[in-house]
Amino acid sequence: MAPAEPNAKPFEVQGELPVFAEERKGWKGYVEWERYPEKKKQAAEVLARYDFPVVSKNIPVQWRTAKEIDPEEYFFEVEGLVNKPMKLTLKDLQDESRFPRMSTAVTLQCSGTRRIEQIHDYPGDGDELINAPWGEGAIGTARYVGVSLKKVIKYCGGLKEEGKNIEFFGADSYFKKGQIYNYAVSVPTHKMKVNEVMLAWEMNGEPLPAIHGAPLRVVVMGYIGARSCKWLTRINVIRDPSMAPVQMKEYIYYTPQIGKHNATYSNGFSIQTMPVASAIMTPVDKDVIIHDGKIKMTGWAYSGSGWPERVEVSNDGGGVWYEVPYDQLSKKYFHAWRTWEIDIPVDAEGWLVNRSKPQTAKRLKMYEDHGTDFLPLTRPAPFDLETEEEYLEEMKKREGRDPVE
Amino acid sequence: MAPAEPNAKPFEVQGELPVFAEERKGWKGYVEWERYPEKKKQAAEVLARYDFPVVSKNIPVQWRTAKEIDPEEYFFEVEGLVNKPMKLTLKDLQDESRFPRMSTAVTLQCSGTRRIEQIHDYPGDGDELINAPWGEGAIGTARYVGVSLKKVIKYCGGLKEEGKNIEFFGADSYFKKGQIYNYAVSVPTHKMKVNEVMLAWEMNGEPLPAIHGAPLRVVVMGYIGARSCKWLTRINVIRDPSMAPVQMKEYIYYTPQIGKHNATYSNGFSIQTMPVASAIMTPVDKDVIIHDGKIKMTGWAYSGSGWPERVEVSNDGGGVWYEVPYDQLSKKYFHAWRTWEIDIPVDAEGWLVNRSKPQTAKRLKMYEDHGTDFLPLTRPAPFDLETEEEYLEEMKKREGRDPVE
Repeated sequence: MAPAEPNAKPFEVQGELPVFAEERKGWKGYVEWERYPEKKKQAAEVLARYDFPVVSKNIPVQWRTAKEIDPEEYFFEVEGLVNKPMKLTLKDLQDESRFPRMSTAVTLQCSGTRRIEQIHDYPGDGDELINAPWGEGAIGTARYVGVSLKKVIKYCGGLKEEGKNIEFFGADSYFKKGQIYNYAVSVPTHKMKVNEVMLAWEMNGEPLPAIHGAPLRVVVMGYIGARSCKWLTRINVIRDPSMAPVQMKEYIYYTPQIGKHNATYSNGFSIQTMPVASAIMTPVDKDVIIHDGKIKMTGWAYSGSGWPERVEVSNDGGGVWYEVPYDQLSKKYFHAWRTWEIDIPVDAEGWLVNRSKPQTAKRLKMYEDHGTDFLPLTRPAPFDLETEEEYLEEMKKREGRDPVE
Repeated sequence: MAPAEPNAKPFEVQGELPVFAEERKGWKGYVEWERYPEKKKQAAEVLARYDFPVVSKNIPVQWRTAKEIDPEEYFFEVEGLVNKPMKLTLKDLQDESRFPRMSTAVTLQCSGTRRIEQIHDYPGDGDELINAPWGEGAIGTARYVGVSLKKVIKYCGGLKEEGKNIEFFGADSYFKKGQIYNYAVSVPTHKMKVNEVMLAWEMNGEPLPAIHGAPLRVVVMGYIGARSCKWLTRINVIRDPSMAPVQMKEYIYYTPQIGKHNATYSNGFSIQTMPVASAIMTPVDKDVIIHDGKIKMTGWAYSGSGWPERVEVSNDGGGVWYEVPYDQLSKKYFHAWRTWEIDIPVDAEGWLVNRSKPQTAKRLKMYEDHGTDFLPLTRPAPFDLETEEEYLEEMKKREGRDPVE
């Protein structure tokens, strides 16, 4: 979500709001803002009057209302620095005599995955940190079917020499500082040339669901999810990276030495390829686990520029490491995560409740006999921890609490 | 606070509540529960009917209502394993022909100091963790005037051979699992023999305030604050440590291998002597600091078994350390903290805003010109971070975001 406009009023209808009709058949309410400067101006005026995040259904209509569109009606344009700009329908793209199909398993990951940990370190009230409080789950894997963008560009006569970046427009409205844009991002042409950009209409054997970008989306392998533009309406080959705000002003990372106050758009680096990352999915953080000497752990491992060859898990915060057996790792793909599971031996006690220890088994029995749930572990015990006689006997063995002289 | 009684009803008056008159002159409503078993039983019955922490003003009256007591009226007993048990008034104790006075600066620290950090690591809903969410401030230092307990014990004919621990009772009621007790703790006699236990009636040149235990409190140097019994009513020399719940069942620390579920009273260790500890008091955690290349830090350092000889501070989480200059450490005492301050050079940026950097100074000016507060730093900037022209110029210098081929 873009930052709230400082000083803007909370949403409250003031007078007549303009209603914008859709500009392409089937895209209910979608407006190509960049092509209708007058409507864009009018929408910006409306936005300026209200607190940002609340948008009336009468103002910009987003993808949420997009309907399924006939493959013959739906089209996208290929324009800019290509030799033969053209307009292609989904039917054209699905014509195997023109475009060979590709099918591959791809992981798409939000660059904000595990951002919640950063938020916990640096809580703030600004858009940089509070929004997108994603945990380990902002990542997903599916098998997509579609056409390599390389084939489409070739079909359009190839790139002009100046064409170094490819911009994608999606049928999604995007707000930034009181302005309205179509969602637009770009990737370098290199990424297309190595067949890592796909135009996909099928996901896991079914038509792409609306929420995943139907009728057609871009799937950029290994890059942050933001580049995999949904609801594709336009492909624009350009020289430099897109100047659209999502590309130029967002998804930028700064070193601690720059920090927020000296940030500009240019002195951060643009997040593109996802680095190696992994997460334990179960047990969850701070879980209290009653176990018999082993704990099942599951998780994922991913790399935007390769694939996880091996996974090791530590049960003690990084001292001892256990390799996940090969057959407990999911299948290898060039562009997908590997999920894994392992039974980690745990001989420890503490917050892990080891039922194989006699003392623990005895205590669990006490809870059972008392008819009280053992969890949450932090609840005070409803019975005395030991009798005074037991205490004194133990103290005698230990020669008291303090030295005798 | 003691744990809530599981399954107890929330407080709601049911029938007639007993009213307990005070048992010693001046101690409004104070009852020596351990000496009046019948009253104790009656009070326990009342307590059993209600949810624990809510106590009617008609049931046990605590120190909060204790009044100043005439030094001739006020007395405490010395009993148990001493050769000549006796009753001493404050006037007796203040009689310098009988007892030489001592005066010293003492730090008293709650063993829960900085416990909030533990709570953040292990949030729970039980009494072990949620209560006492103390930060760095659960510590205080004062100059006390009084008499060394060693002199009092000597005056009472010295210890019997079996006397190895000294129990203190305070005019404070204490609840545990539906039972009522007088507050009682003990220290080994060794602590008394080295003159580290004092009976004090003066604090920082003034009579001890009610909240600090007037008319007379125990000050145990170097031990957790809980042993420095306030509103002293009784000194009882015993063989083993006190079996009163505060001593036997609380202020116990467990290793992670025992954890909560296998805790007994005897398998933890009793917290007595305070280990070396220190804290930065300013700036506070996560402060955003606008500085000119140096940051003033203040803090304290303390040890229950010695005194901090030197303090070092790191400005980078433990890489580089700066020694606090000798003259910026407070005076040395055997039993008190040392406070300190230091101007730490900080050349970094990021969350520390270094006004001596030209880029930062420029950005601060932008906020000033815009009439917007710079802090909180996490609020989105109300102006664009740089113009598109500046961005393109910078990008050109950096040869773009991506490689050209």
